[in-house]
Amino acid sequence: MPETETPAIDMENWVCPMPLRDSPNIVMGHGGGGAMSGELIEHLFLPAFGPAAQSELGDSAVVAIGDTRLAFSTDSFVVKPMNFPGGSIGDLAVNGTVNDLAMSGARPLVLSTAFILEEGTPLSEIARVATAMGTAALTAGVTLVTGDTKVVDAGHGDGVYVNTAGIGVLDESVDIRPQRACPGDAVLVSGEIGLHGVAVLSRREGIEFETTVCSDTAALHGLVAAMLATGADIHVLRDPTRGGVAASLNEIARAAGAGVRLDETRIPIPPGVRDACGLLGLDPLYVANEGKLIAFVPDRDADRVLAAMRDHPLGAHAERIGTCVADHPGMVVARTALGGTRVVDLPIGEQLPRIC
Amino acid sequence: MPETETPAIDMENWVCPMPLRDSPNIVMGHGGGGAMSGELIEHLFLPAFGPAAQSELGDSAVVAIGDTRLAFSTDSFVVKPMNFPGGSIGDLAVNGTVNDLAMSGARPLVLSTAFILEEGTPLSEIARVATAMGTAALTAGVTLVTGDTKVVDAGHGDGVYVNTAGIGVLDESVDIRPQRACPGDAVLVSGEIGLHGVAVLSRREGIEFETTVCSDTAALHGLVAAMLATGADIHVLRDPTRGGVAASLNEIARAAGAGVRLDETRIPIPPGVRDACGLLGLDPLYVANEGKLIAFVPDRDADRVLAAMRDHPLGAHAERIGTCVADHPGMVVARTALGGTRVVDLPIGEQLPRIC
Repeated sequence: MPETETPAIDMENWVCPMPLRDSPNIVMGHGGGGAMSGELIEHLFLPAFGPAAQSELGDSAVVAIGDTRLAFSTDSFVVKPMNFPGGSIGDLAVNGTVNDLAMSGARPLVLSTAFILEEGTPLSEIARVATAMGTAALTAGVTLVTGDTKVVDAGHGDGVYVNTAGIGVLDESVDIRPQRACPGDAVLVSGEIGLHGVAVLSRREGIEFETTVCSDTAALHGLVAAMLATGADIHVLRDPTRGGVAASLNEIARAAGAGVRLDETRIPIPPGVRDACGLLGLDPLYVANEGKLIAFVPDRDADRVLAAMRDHPLGAHAERIGTCVADHPGMVVARTALGGTRVVDLPIGEQLPRIC
Repeated sequence: MPETETPAIDMENWVCPMPLRDSPNIVMGHGGGGAMSGELIEHLFLPAFGPAAQSELGDSAVVAIGDTRLAFSTDSFVVKPMNFPGGSIGDLAVNGTVNDLAMSGARPLVLSTAFILEEGTPLSEIARVATAMGTAALTAGVTLVTGDTKVVDAGHGDGVYVNTAGIGVLDESVDIRPQRACPGDAVLVSGEIGLHGVAVLSRREGIEFETTVCSDTAALHGLVAAMLATGADIHVLRDPTRGGVAASLNEIARAAGAGVRLDETRIPIPPGVRDACGLLGLDPLYVANEGKLIAFVPDRDADRVLAAMRDHPLGAHAERIGTCVADHPGMVVARTALGGTRVVDLPIGEQLPRIC
């Protein structure tokens, strides 16, 4: 992929917005996985936790116990509605935590499940969620080993909130983390983007599109295993959920102190997502995915990793969408179809709240 | 302790109530840690999860990874109000999961933290919760390593809900679980009961008692370590939280197929709890604790374990309160101060909802 010139942006005076400092209360954007979520961690949780917290508090942590290296992760799920085309909160609760583990290169083993149920919720609805969790766990090959149930008064919940935490095992040689992104790395995506966010939105807002867009919710550790089996030195993996591809790439760029240059024409965007986003004024790069991953791999390994991805059912539409660059560290820039460039900024909040 | 005769109960026709089957919806009692919670797991979650679930889905699970034996546990916290005499939801969130790990004999190492925040909640309130978590984690010697934050619309939460999951390590020789309760075992409690439930209730209902009753929230793994250091073969440990001592003893009795005979006069009940329970018509045996444990130990080990408990600050008021018996398997019976006996049944729901 040929490299274009860096865009004309005044980097000296570029200031990260700090909306947290202007609001005394929680707003929906704090849960969006964008800048506001990051600030909540950096300016509130980390100082408050103090020395008891590990400095990063990322999506998953690597914990060494004797000779065993574990990955440990947690996610709560509050998606609204609980059922949407292609899946439900139960699928997300299993696949989401499995994927957080897989993005560190771990083999997921066990999950915990914790429910916050709202008084008055039909038992049949809960059984439906739990059945989806059981099916998803069986598909992913993980075991549900421990749990908890709390009930809150009507008007203090929303049917079912689910938390899962998970443990996975890491092979000795695996070292996959955002900080390893390196100028020259190829940036790969495992398939078509934007499906989950549009699927949830279409159900929530009652919008009918010409074709039904289904969530891509899926467990990605099998795909990751296929990628690792190539022997490539995979630097970074990330599942672009809340905040979409844009948020994930920005976080990686900042963590690594490197830039990312995207080729927009190479990003696989399915027609249903393109239509919906056009209609609603959304940018597909910011729409959530629940069954896709982004990978940073050395240029020399890119072709065989891409081939391995395309050989896997969950990576059939994988593409090389960009390159990690030394220019504009911490920033993501896209070359548009018209040949111009635009900054793909870290989203502030979330254009679609409660999508997971 | 002299044994009295078994009570006159028609065991043949004793039927466990199945309220779940009569209600199509979730009621508060399903979150109470009593019979209804148990039925939700047995009749709804386990069948729905299917083969993906481990058969017990207990408060904590033991997971073997190579030569390493881990304990894994999760709890969500929805206590109302978030602050109460002696602690807050932040203390509970750390100590509760630390204690679930400790009750399997594990040394707690790391915790995850997942927040469900309600739109409009003051950031200062969240900082207060997080600060309490940091302090409690530092006190307990555990590290907060990974996390998640979701925001739900105003009217769909209650300020802050917190989930923690935790990982601990088990020594090779440790085998502590309810099934190991054995006729002849001494039943020990680590101190005065009922403090947490009464503390929450007093704040929630605005009830003033003559003395302020403070929650006993505390991390118990240090006390457990002191008990294990005696070399005694500890059979069962349990922290009597929701449903109180009554629920914990009933669950142990059922799991082990053994009976429990309590001597009510030996159960340490502080005056403030006794007064509050008298006023409100509550039974202290059913009131939640957050810093107490129950232990089943072989009679021959009871005295030295009790001595070790009393040497620890969190076990200063430890007592032997009963004996595990072969009679009336699955049942807990108390000899009252008047010399009679009464059945201490598994509570159906919870007399005090949302206490943790």
